[in-house]
Amino acid sequence: MKEMLQKILAQNRCWIKYGKVANYIPALAKAEPKHLGISIMNIKGQAVTVGDCCVKFTMQSISKPLALIQALLDSGPVEVFRKVGMEPTGDPFNSIVKLETLKPSKPLNPMINAGAITTTSLIKGKDSIERIERLLKLVRTMAGNKNIGINREMYMSEKETADRNRAMAYFMRDTGVLEGDVEEVLDAYFMQCAIEVSCSDIAAIALCLANRGLTIDGREIVPGDIVRVVTTFMVTCGMYNASGEFAIKAGIPAKSGVSGGIMAVVPGKMGIGVYSPALDERGNSIAGVHVLEDLSAWLDLSIF
Amino acid sequence: MKEMLQKILAQNRCWIKYGKVANYIPALAKAEPKHLGISIMNIKGQAVTVGDCCVKFTMQSISKPLALIQALLDSGPVEVFRKVGMEPTGDPFNSIVKLETLKPSKPLNPMINAGAITTTSLIKGKDSIERIERLLKLVRTMAGNKNIGINREMYMSEKETADRNRAMAYFMRDTGVLEGDVEEVLDAYFMQCAIEVSCSDIAAIALCLANRGLTIDGREIVPGDIVRVVTTFMVTCGMYNASGEFAIKAGIPAKSGVSGGIMAVVPGKMGIGVYSPALDERGNSIAGVHVLEDLSAWLDLSIF
Amino acid sequence: MKEMLQKILAQNRCWIKYGKVANYIPALAKAEPKHLGISIMNIKGQAVTVGDCCVKFTMQSISKPLALIQALLDSGPVEVFRKVGMEPTGDPFNSIVKLETLKPSKPLNPMINAGAITTTSLIKGKDSIERIERLLKLVRTMAGNKNIGINREMYMSEKETADRNRAMAYFMRDTGVLEGDVEEVLDAYFMQCAIEVSCSDIAAIALCLANRGLTIDGREIVPGDIVRVVTTFMVTCGMYNASGEFAIKAGIPAKSGVSGGIMAVVPGKMGIGVYSPALDERGNSIAGVHVLEDLSAWLDLSIF
Amino acid sequence: MKEMLQKILAQNRCWIKYGKVANYIPALAKAEPKHLGISIMNIKGQAVTVGDCCVKFTMQSISKPLALIQALLDSGPVEVFRKVGMEPTGDPFNSIVKLETLKPSKPLNPMINAGAITTTSLIKGKDSIERIERLLKLVRTMAGNKNIGINREMYMSEKETADRNRAMAYFMRDTGVLEGDVEEVLDAYFMQCAIEVSCSDIAAIALCLANRGLTIDGREIVPGDIVRVVTTFMVTCGMYNASGEFAIKAGIPAKSGVSGGIMAVVPGKMGIGVYSPALDERGNSIAGVHVLEDLSAWLDLSIF
Repeated sequence: MKEMLQKILAQNRCWIKYGKVANYIPALAKAEPKHLGISIMNIKGQAVTVGDCCVKFTMQSISKPLALIQALLDSGPVEVFRKVGMEPTGDPFNSIVKLETLKPSKPLNPMINAGAITTTSLIKGKDSIERIERLLKLVRTMAGNKNIGINREMYMSEKETADRNRAMAYFMRDTGVLEGDVEEVLDAYFMQCAIEVSCSDIAAIALCLANRGLTIDGREIVPGDIVRVVTTFMVTCGMYNASGEFAIKAGIPAKSGVSGGIMAVVPGKMGIGVYSPALDERGNSIAGVHVLEDLSAWLDLSIF
Repeated sequence: MKEMLQKILAQNRCWIKYGKVANYIPALAKAEPKHLGISIMNIKGQAVTVGDCCVKFTMQSISKPLALIQALLDSGPVEVFRKVGMEPTGDPFNSIVKLETLKPSKPLNPMINAGAITTTSLIKGKDSIERIERLLKLVRTMAGNKNIGINREMYMSEKETADRNRAMAYFMRDTGVLEGDVEEVLDAYFMQCAIEVSCSDIAAIALCLANRGLTIDGREIVPGDIVRVVTTFMVTCGMYNASGEFAIKAGIPAKSGVSGGIMAVVPGKMGIGVYSPALDERGNSIAGVHVLEDLSAWLDLSIF
Repeated sequence: MKEMLQKILAQNRCWIKYGKVANYIPALAKAEPKHLGISIMNIKGQAVTVGDCCVKFTMQSISKPLALIQALLDSGPVEVFRKVGMEPTGDPFNSIVKLETLKPSKPLNPMINAGAITTTSLIKGKDSIERIERLLKLVRTMAGNKNIGINREMYMSEKETADRNRAMAYFMRDTGVLEGDVEEVLDAYFMQCAIEVSCSDIAAIALCLANRGLTIDGREIVPGDIVRVVTTFMVTCGMYNASGEFAIKAGIPAKSGVSGGIMAVVPGKMGIGVYSPALDERGNSIAGVHVLEDLSAWLDLSIF
Repeated sequence: MKEMLQKILAQNRCWIKYGKVANYIPALAKAEPKHLGISIMNIKGQAVTVGDCCVKFTMQSISKPLALIQALLDSGPVEVFRKVGMEPTGDPFNSIVKLETLKPSKPLNPMINAGAITTTSLIKGKDSIERIERLLKLVRTMAGNKNIGINREMYMSEKETADRNRAMAYFMRDTGVLEGDVEEVLDAYFMQCAIEVSCSDIAAIALCLANRGLTIDGREIVPGDIVRVVTTFMVTCGMYNASGEFAIKAGIPAKSGVSGGIMAVVPGKMGIGVYSPALDERGNSIAGVHVLEDLSAWLDLSIF
């Protein structure tokens, strides 16, 4: 297995030069473009890691499915899906157009920014600290890593460059989708984007989803019906504007982040964490996407 | 099994009254709203049918995945996906907006009208008759029913009321997506929508997809990689603007048509055909959707 | 003249019942729907007023051309039109769509909210108080009324219900159109909307524009080239989504506000202020529009 | 006067090199980019022409206000404005988006393609020949030139490259805006675009509008109220996406065409025809626009 991973890693390094590290948030731009790491954890808890696996990076959009889990746990599916839709969109993840043109106005799904901000608002807590602590607790439990925390520099950087998200949040408060203190919700959202992890953490979290929400020794962390909802969203909307293509080419439920991480869930089999910060034009890790396509082909991991 | 199907049928009849038979094509409006039929064929070729299973109806959008298969066989994936995208869309199936706003202009996927018209143009043939005969041959082989043909009245009715499709087709010729004689391509498209089938035909076709493109006795009709592509599209874009919701609630690759039919593929297990012409507001058979959700829950058919 | 005005007023009262007082800002909803007042001031300074002319109301969008004047005085046309366009739009005054879809992103004109917020940001001042004081000074001078001030209740009400404007402002800061402290610019914008006037004030201000920026006794308040720019905008974009229709039916440069006021400029002849808070569906005073159409017909005031 | 025109012509030749001859219709691409001609006819019928004034060119969009006149004469304003709106748009002249997004669907004004096609459908006639003959008769009478006719090569070229217009026409028939035989209406529309004129013809037609629809010797060709409507549209929507800017900078009611012609109406004073086929990015004659701005400044022609 390790050998195979090393081969896959080696043959996909070449993609990095066609990608670009995200730079719209200054702290993101500091990432080393050459990094590429893969971590796999199977259903028996055995882990294999190759490449730059110890590099820490922030979750960014990878936090979206996890925030959705916490919101579903806290507010229930009825309330969550009264506010956020279930449909994929052909628009970019930070588009505001449909919030105006769709009637009734409702973000199309929880994997685009507008939907994710709404999801975060549905995590219980009297303020952003309480919300983020609930989410952090979930993340730490799923990852089996108590040391996971917030990258403070990234959080501050997000906060300072978040006018597009702010615009969406205020628009949604105007239409009644978002309630309460917008800046407070955004604050929790920026913190969740700045949760710092490694490939191995991501693989462990993905494994928990692959194992229907159970730990390796069988304790339930996330109820099975919530796991099903979340992995379905990962297929239909997990890879930004390239979700459809990734479903066809790799067929693995996955969620990417603009930091260059990808969390991939192979139901009943394994959790995968990939990290490589050079992104393609849709915002997905360019080498990461190819690594997962190769892995899917070699190990026949497609759910389709 | 038959008993269970009858129960499911009985408990979902109540939905019919909340739906409406499509009326934008006059010939469609003649359907009997009360009809509801289910046909299931398992991987061993055993069939169970309940309700109004002998009623004939036209394929409408159910023909889209089949035309995609024929186009992939005839023109290859490179050419097909140079012209049509792989991404789901948040817009209605007959929306023209994205053809103007997306650069480069390209229909988002082959399950919306613009994409399907393009797909049909990629079926080989010197005219609409040759194209439709190639497609009909595929459909007949997959269904194991040589008698499948075109409903002429429906075809004429489609043709007369197809200005929206015509608008999209001319727009796409303007942007270079569609080539050749627009009216001739549309003619083939209208015929394909008017292919007449029963629930059992649909179940048999679905079974062929569920069986990785093989007949029950193991002959390959559709190559496995094409089957995978098509069933993936059925998940991400098969149920119009409710594809995401259906993936979450039923989790079965499916394609609906405005005639009220739904073709559902349970990989490795069975093919399902449902028919009930009263539609919900998104254009899916209202009782049909609920039947499939129940079936999925009772038999644990979700791929997620 | 007074008689004619009274006739026009009498015959247009009937429209009021087809309109509705704006209610999206609570303080606006308190207006008395039955009010209807007309004030005309001619180039010799003679004034005629009929109806509810002493009722005070807030300027709302009527402040937009005045803020544009101050921005042009303060920042010059090059800077102003680098940030704001000159083109009318078919979209509603509070639409955010074009800010995303137009490249480069730039509000289409200074008479829609996005453009007006930008205009306000181009009025000099170290904070919102300084900006609004500059604008108030201009308004007072044009109106010849030192007592014009801010309606504090309305200002607070605007501020509390301004999430849509906030969304646009943050979006524009994201795209680089708006600079500096968004909340501070918005604060000035909310105050300018809450400037309190009567029909007579509006007529006097309009007269100043009708007189090419001069007072009746010939002192220049606004340079002629700025007057020309502003009155042109009033024709192409002054009456929200009904500007084209109003240009055809009345042909008078005019600017309306959702408080129910309309400021109309008849170049070389007169300034007109109309007030009646019941609005048509586009946000213009329903009786006010008809009064101006009648006035234009009776006195042949159209510039076309 | 002639001297002044020659100066204006000389100093604006330099703009030509920044423009580009339209090439989306092959026959248009044959125009000589260096051509620049100006023709002015005053209210007394005196004409001055400078530059390439004898060059023939096709009307293209300049035919839109004339078709509007004929439609208003034939079908009346109520019927015309039931089908076409009065509002300017921020979208390009060939945009189809608003036909889908606006409810009820209605082209925004008669100066964009969708609106103009509708206008042509409202000219009486049992077929395209009858419609175009009515329009030609009007054009010839207004121009005082019986020899004006259709450029057949251009007409055929329009017809062959008109898929975008075809798309809009079929879309509008789908929504009920356009009735009857779409290809027949389009045929008339393509012919009207291909009406061949010179600068002097344009100046004469413009003069008729400038003279409130009367010939120089006082015969009424177009009723005054229709003239008013048409010149108003020329201000709010006559110069494509640059109408607002042109209103501010030149302030003359004008209509441009992609052939490089501009028809400008100075009410009560003169008619102007300008021709220079190199276009700016919005589709207006680049030298033509500057010539008119200079003329307006030198002779103080702005209506504002």
